[in-house]
Amino acid sequence: MQKARIKSSEDYIQSLRGRNLKVYLMGQLVEEPVDHPMMRPSINAMALTYELETEKPELATALSPYTGEPVNRFLHVAMQAEDVVQQNQLQRCLGQLTGTCFQRCVGMDALNSLYSVTYEIDQKYGTPYHTRLKGFIREIQLHNYVIGGAMTDVKGDRSQPPSAQADPDMYLHISKRTPDGVYIRGAKAHQTGAINSHWLVVMPTLRLQPNEADFAIVGALPVDAAGITYVVGRQSCDTRGLESEMEAGNARFSGQEALVIFEDAFIPNELIFMNGETDFTAMLVERFTAFHRRSYVCKAGVGDVLIGAAALAAEYHGVENSSHIRDKLVEMTYLNETIYATGMASSYQSHLTASGAYLCDQLLANVCKQQVTRVTYEMARLAQDLAGGLLVTMPSQADHQQQQIGPLVDKYLRARQDVPTENRMRILRLIENLTLGRNAVGYLTESLHGAGSPQAQRIQIQRQMDLGAKKSLAKNLSGIR
Amino acid sequence: MQKARIKSSEDYIQSLRGRNLKVYLMGQLVEEPVDHPMMRPSINAMALTYELETEKPELATALSPYTGEPVNRFLHVAMQAEDVVQQNQLQRCLGQLTGTCFQRCVGMDALNSLYSVTYEIDQKYGTPYHTRLKGFIREIQLHNYVIGGAMTDVKGDRSQPPSAQADPDMYLHISKRTPDGVYIRGAKAHQTGAINSHWLVVMPTLRLQPNEADFAIVGALPVDAAGITYVVGRQSCDTRGLESEMEAGNARFSGQEALVIFEDAFIPNELIFMNGETDFTAMLVERFTAFHRRSYVCKAGVGDVLIGAAALAAEYHGVENSSHIRDKLVEMTYLNETIYATGMASSYQSHLTASGAYLCDQLLANVCKQQVTRVTYEMARLAQDLAGGLLVTMPSQADHQQQQIGPLVDKYLRARQDVPTENRMRILRLIENLTLGRNAVGYLTESLHGAGSPQAQRIQIQRQMDLGAKKSLAKNLSGIR
Amino acid sequence: MQKARIKSSEDYIQSLRGRNLKVYLMGQLVEEPVDHPMMRPSINAMALTYELETEKPELATALSPYTGEPVNRFLHVAMQAEDVVQQNQLQRCLGQLTGTCFQRCVGMDALNSLYSVTYEIDQKYGTPYHTRLKGFIREIQLHNYVIGGAMTDVKGDRSQPPSAQADPDMYLHISKRTPDGVYIRGAKAHQTGAINSHWLVVMPTLRLQPNEADFAIVGALPVDAAGITYVVGRQSCDTRGLESEMEAGNARFSGQEALVIFEDAFIPNELIFMNGETDFTAMLVERFTAFHRRSYVCKAGVGDVLIGAAALAAEYHGVENSSHIRDKLVEMTYLNETIYATGMASSYQSHLTASGAYLCDQLLANVCKQQVTRVTYEMARLAQDLAGGLLVTMPSQADHQQQQIGPLVDKYLRARQDVPTENRMRILRLIENLTLGRNAVGYLTESLHGAGSPQAQRIQIQRQMDLGAKKSLAKNLSGIR
Amino acid sequence: MQKARIKSSEDYIQSLRGRNLKVYLMGQLVEEPVDHPMMRPSINAMALTYELETEKPELATALSPYTGEPVNRFLHVAMQAEDVVQQNQLQRCLGQLTGTCFQRCVGMDALNSLYSVTYEIDQKYGTPYHTRLKGFIREIQLHNYVIGGAMTDVKGDRSQPPSAQADPDMYLHISKRTPDGVYIRGAKAHQTGAINSHWLVVMPTLRLQPNEADFAIVGALPVDAAGITYVVGRQSCDTRGLESEMEAGNARFSGQEALVIFEDAFIPNELIFMNGETDFTAMLVERFTAFHRRSYVCKAGVGDVLIGAAALAAEYHGVENSSHIRDKLVEMTYLNETIYATGMASSYQSHLTASGAYLCDQLLANVCKQQVTRVTYEMARLAQDLAGGLLVTMPSQADHQQQQIGPLVDKYLRARQDVPTENRMRILRLIENLTLGRNAVGYLTESLHGAGSPQAQRIQIQRQMDLGAKKSLAKNLSGIR
Repeated sequence: MQKARIKSSEDYIQSLRGRNLKVYLMGQLVEEPVDHPMMRPSINAMALTYELETEKPELATALSPYTGEPVNRFLHVAMQAEDVVQQNQLQRCLGQLTGTCFQRCVGMDALNSLYSVTYEIDQKYGTPYHTRLKGFIREIQLHNYVIGGAMTDVKGDRSQPPSAQADPDMYLHISKRTPDGVYIRGAKAHQTGAINSHWLVVMPTLRLQPNEADFAIVGALPVDAAGITYVVGRQSCDTRGLESEMEAGNARFSGQEALVIFEDAFIPNELIFMNGETDFTAMLVERFTAFHRRSYVCKAGVGDVLIGAAALAAEYHGVENSSHIRDKLVEMTYLNETIYATGMASSYQSHLTASGAYLCDQLLANVCKQQVTRVTYEMARLAQDLAGGLLVTMPSQADHQQQQIGPLVDKYLRARQDVPTENRMRILRLIENLTLGRNAVGYLTESLHGAGSPQAQRIQIQRQMDLGAKKSLAKNLSGIR
Repeated sequence: MQKARIKSSEDYIQSLRGRNLKVYLMGQLVEEPVDHPMMRPSINAMALTYELETEKPELATALSPYTGEPVNRFLHVAMQAEDVVQQNQLQRCLGQLTGTCFQRCVGMDALNSLYSVTYEIDQKYGTPYHTRLKGFIREIQLHNYVIGGAMTDVKGDRSQPPSAQADPDMYLHISKRTPDGVYIRGAKAHQTGAINSHWLVVMPTLRLQPNEADFAIVGALPVDAAGITYVVGRQSCDTRGLESEMEAGNARFSGQEALVIFEDAFIPNELIFMNGETDFTAMLVERFTAFHRRSYVCKAGVGDVLIGAAALAAEYHGVENSSHIRDKLVEMTYLNETIYATGMASSYQSHLTASGAYLCDQLLANVCKQQVTRVTYEMARLAQDLAGGLLVTMPSQADHQQQQIGPLVDKYLRARQDVPTENRMRILRLIENLTLGRNAVGYLTESLHGAGSPQAQRIQIQRQMDLGAKKSLAKNLSGIR
Repeated sequence: MQKARIKSSEDYIQSLRGRNLKVYLMGQLVEEPVDHPMMRPSINAMALTYELETEKPELATALSPYTGEPVNRFLHVAMQAEDVVQQNQLQRCLGQLTGTCFQRCVGMDALNSLYSVTYEIDQKYGTPYHTRLKGFIREIQLHNYVIGGAMTDVKGDRSQPPSAQADPDMYLHISKRTPDGVYIRGAKAHQTGAINSHWLVVMPTLRLQPNEADFAIVGALPVDAAGITYVVGRQSCDTRGLESEMEAGNARFSGQEALVIFEDAFIPNELIFMNGETDFTAMLVERFTAFHRRSYVCKAGVGDVLIGAAALAAEYHGVENSSHIRDKLVEMTYLNETIYATGMASSYQSHLTASGAYLCDQLLANVCKQQVTRVTYEMARLAQDLAGGLLVTMPSQADHQQQQIGPLVDKYLRARQDVPTENRMRILRLIENLTLGRNAVGYLTESLHGAGSPQAQRIQIQRQMDLGAKKSLAKNLSGIR
Repeated sequence: MQKARIKSSEDYIQSLRGRNLKVYLMGQLVEEPVDHPMMRPSINAMALTYELETEKPELATALSPYTGEPVNRFLHVAMQAEDVVQQNQLQRCLGQLTGTCFQRCVGMDALNSLYSVTYEIDQKYGTPYHTRLKGFIREIQLHNYVIGGAMTDVKGDRSQPPSAQADPDMYLHISKRTPDGVYIRGAKAHQTGAINSHWLVVMPTLRLQPNEADFAIVGALPVDAAGITYVVGRQSCDTRGLESEMEAGNARFSGQEALVIFEDAFIPNELIFMNGETDFTAMLVERFTAFHRRSYVCKAGVGDVLIGAAALAAEYHGVENSSHIRDKLVEMTYLNETIYATGMASSYQSHLTASGAYLCDQLLANVCKQQVTRVTYEMARLAQDLAGGLLVTMPSQADHQQQQIGPLVDKYLRARQDVPTENRMRILRLIENLTLGRNAVGYLTESLHGAGSPQAQRIQIQRQMDLGAKKSLAKNLSGIR
């Protein structure tokens, strides 16, 4: 692994080369992900998190108490509410610039939640996890690494807990213990940006029972550790970028999610941050998902792109002043800002944990994510409404450039005479990309299932809605004694 | 008017006595509003804003730079974002405690917006409005008065501007000017808590044109100034409280709105804060409505009462553990918190104005209010769903207490055997009160129209949605140059 | 009871006089319901079902196979799909003319469902119910009586079935059996138009178990049978009509629902249509609710009134050509027609039962009712949006007519100069009536809970959604074998 | 063109061979569409309309008054309401069997609307259009041809009418007139199944003004007429089927839409059905769109597939009995049936036109289509919720079949142990196909824009909502005279 500090997006991309990862995509072993045209867009998106360090340092960096230097905000643990708020601002900005999932939030949210949870485990059990974690954070800050947080297990039969699965590997677990560390088996699904990371931090995916101690493992591994295999997921229209940049809609940026399989991969003791403390698994999952659910403020940034694209389509069609068009843009803006506002309120209302780190408001974080699961689909519908039917019947760029048919395509697809047909085609392809194509994966389905499916938020809301206090208010006003 | 400082809710109620206001209700001149059973609940709600001064001083008071003493937060001008945030916290708390509109926000929002606007008028025109306003604020803080903000004109034919109305009095305007001040004519509609106030601050209701200078008047009048008449509005079920406390659902608290008619009422020069500067009317309306639209966080407090009432109804019916019941309570909580979160995000994102005062985020304030116009109706629907049909078919308390029929009513309206029938009846009456009855006025219709109807928010969202920046994002990603 | 055939609305009202019913309202025994100003509006609404016999005979009557004469359609059993369709047309028409619940559908739906169910019971058990029922129908057709269908029990603790209630009277049941008939005890809640009926038909409210035979009783009783007591339910703003016609909004018409208590009331053998056949209770409930859920097409008629009122309000305000106003009227129309269309589709798709009578499509009937539970609330919200805030802050008619204040109220509440202020006040009162007031009870809460609460429809939809067939379609297309 | 009667799907496919059409796809001239793997699925879907003739003749055929024989229902003019209803039943059935757009409705709806419109033109102007049309219908029935209805022009600058476009070809128009017929120029966009048709019927796309007579042309051309060029539109994931059947989700069936360019193509007099009668263009558009908007009942058939697929996913995951899962399937069914019911109600309410043919209810047809534009997106969201995140992160079939990685993929993607992993993968691919992939084009975006965008329906609803009658109802009830 790269040893020198990563100082730029170029350094970052260079750092990914030559790692000898076992990566499969569409049945093929990928020689060098950096050079694979289907994988590169996701690397570009991640690279932007480095570029912003120099372009917007006040947003993209924070002062580390460990190194005494500014570090990338994605590697910083929030020690004040303002830090949590700034995470959201950074996320919206990156959503705006990439129009996709830039993949670096999971690691940030993992470090932030582990910071306070390891502290509390140590308080109870006298374990050394918190000190180890701080050492690990210092190292990754010094190198400016990307951390992937690996939580979601493949889960097998959802009606059964980990310990009752026919195949025990359905949840990642310790397969062997040695004096120096542990070996783990299992697989983590939907791993965002895993192949674009330098380190993976594995964590349990749900509240475990006392008899499930082998599943209660948290630890860090380099992405190229022995025993790890990556299988890249298919995405809608993922091969479009192979045809041409324009056909892809947003050819430069995309998300990435992989199935990561661990076949007895090793974690040394000094990188283990939980080992069998099943009573802390619920706290870890709740804190991680609280951070991560409000991280979906990024979708407000992607929503800004979609609003802009829809407005351009209307402008190109000559209808931008029609009242129903304006009204739909207002509706999209209103919906989009509810994502931002609920996430930001959660971050602003952060509170101090025993560890000294701040934790966002959990109820509002779940409200934010629940909002995301609904709003993005309605945004997509409205954007397609404004785009017009050509969105899904438009000839290809190859037709537009073909000698015989090209001039006819150009003539007949022109809307406003002063707007080049190609511009109209590009903006429709971008809307297709965001609502049906490659980045619809992140904007829609990931908005639904990432950081937990809608029902997972509802369970948390139920836990935190404090009906008792609300019943008292009602009793008091209705005169019940 | 009361001269001694108002130090308690009792002082406040005392201060309202003997003012010789001309108040009409249902065709009758009201002798003493304080003693009128239909008006008293609204006075009780306002009185709670005084009670909280001693019960929750950190929430309900703020340190005044003018008096050097803690003053009621409703009279304080926010000089930091945290002050704006605390307004929202106070509003939610009062919504929870009263289950209705406590009527004191308009004045707070008027003072806060006038503070910065008068400063900017003075900067441009060398007028003395800002100094006058600070003097006025000091006076009301010293006496701890209630300020009513009077903005909404009756408007006549909505297709015509003020200057083109057949009857010029459709918008309040200066009818005569003297060296000592101005006389005003017109009427303000829907005036929340006007009769429970000590002072009224009149303000124009919309952006005025240069030829409409007579309508551009801002100034303060005591509520008992010569020439003012009040006509109290009807409310759904407003006479229920005359029957019995229980029939009213929430007999102790209600809102109040009146038509306030000004027939050449006088404002002395030192209480005039705008006089003809039509170019500042849009700024005033925008800033006032920004503050006031995010003030609707109070409805999240009322929503807490409604959620608690619905949960109690379910509990009394023996179904609180049914999955669809739980899910509806989760849905209500989720919806309710989106009101809170959007308002709070607006307040947290407050920014400094030239005057030194803070102004909430205008886009998010409008998003908050738009959310309120939708969410409260869905909350009401869900609460009625949980309440069951008896909500609207339940015999009266008089039947329940009647000698012959009472025992039968008690027997047949009992749900869970261990819950007194009366408790069930009380909680259903409270839900009726909030969704159809007297406080539905504030929870529903006022949520729709207060601080501007839904379309007014959409116009502001349109003004602030910055399509230009969003189009640039889309162009950049789609490769349009 | 009236013996001569009821030939007109006047006859009908006359037929209700002097019945010596035990009716309680607000703690008082009601001397003569017909003359009670709070009860009369519901009688007027029912009377209109007679008036239409002569005004629109093709809609309001059908040829009886029993009498050979045209009879009121509410007493007719549908022997072809077209009959079922015509019921819906009649219901929408009456909703339009009354703006409320006209209360005669329950009886119609009870007769129609009992017709086929009694036939099938007799087929299985050799009982004489079907013949008895036909005899009963012939009698009521000859006299042109109003039939109330009494299904909903008070239910006590909802977590327990009838047989496990602490108090067995929570579900109506046979308290004594004699050679001549049975005595019944219990109470039916929310009984629509019961006091305005001539006969009540009691029916079980849910699927019963074999050990609950005493609860499986269907039979007819005259409303003035010994042992029956009526307690009229409170409604929002129910006393407004006592003040003035205009204050009520719709003073002429209202709905009516009562708690009906049976203290050992007698049903003679010849009027018993089910007695212990618990295995047919589910069929009866399902068929009755199928008919009754699609009967909510009446709400599309009430919706027509609300749309018209909202359009008038907009016109009076001078904004009827504003694009957002037009759009909201379109939205209301669209929503309203989905009620009509889903109900009508259910009726058109009626199928023949073994008895020869037609039964509406059950899945679509439940879809219709589910639609009603959502759409009416959104309609109310939109209507209030169009009405403006004055809806809930408007002075009373008494103020408008008062000598001193009246002219000022008239002046300041005038919107368009050519529209009398009174007209504006009347239309706002009508919208208040339909969305918060007396007829909101029927338009909103009854739309939610009448014919079963939303969850009841969902259970039926689940039973009829035939996932097996749908899974096969999906398997086939995805290539699963 | 094929001369023998097409008697089977095989005949149909044979009839498409060797036509020498000028078809472009992705920049290439397509040699033989029938054999092109990207085009074949749309041909398969159309072929099913022939297959049903023998499999479900009562549904798929109707007795022709012209040939005296049963003909394909898609070629039949409805001479009774029941015929219109049967169209909807057939459409739902084909949606269920193909999971996509089977492309034959436009022609059916064109013939049905032209039948009555040509009759009325002839009545007014003494033209021979109706007779010609009947002759044409007889011919196509004899051969059992597919008719494509070509209405939507490319439209250029939407702020300008046809006659004011910078380029007159933005709306199809007569470029030359000869004694034998007319030549036409322009292009029709989004032409569903055009290349799979035998004949095209061109029609104007909007209400024309008197000075736009050249645009008022209706006529029929064989698809291989000189001067016609086809450019096939791109679809989301349209190349997936080239990889493997399973990766496509639904490899067998898809929709097809093309840009059809007319460069002075000829229509002989006997195939002209309108020529300059601009005053009938609005009637034609309204009647065609009425038929076509209610034709979207097909989406309820596709919705059945989606519900089945979502239910299978839940079953495979072991969660089919979870209450929130059941509830989401109920919600999908409810939403899906509202499409069916509104369309069916429109068809049942068909009325006789002067020509003797039946026309569906226009208001309800527009309500149906408006419902489709909203419901399908919510259905897709719910289906994705039930599918789980693997929907968009699932490795490819190639990975599943690869030697090294295949067994691991199989192991870790297995949910319930008794369900083969491949089955789970297949069902997720089908849901991807319908909600993001190739058939999302038809299920979502076409549901939005086909037969007119949402705003087009709202304009029609506005025209038909009869506010006058509704206002009268409200006036009457509120006592306004």
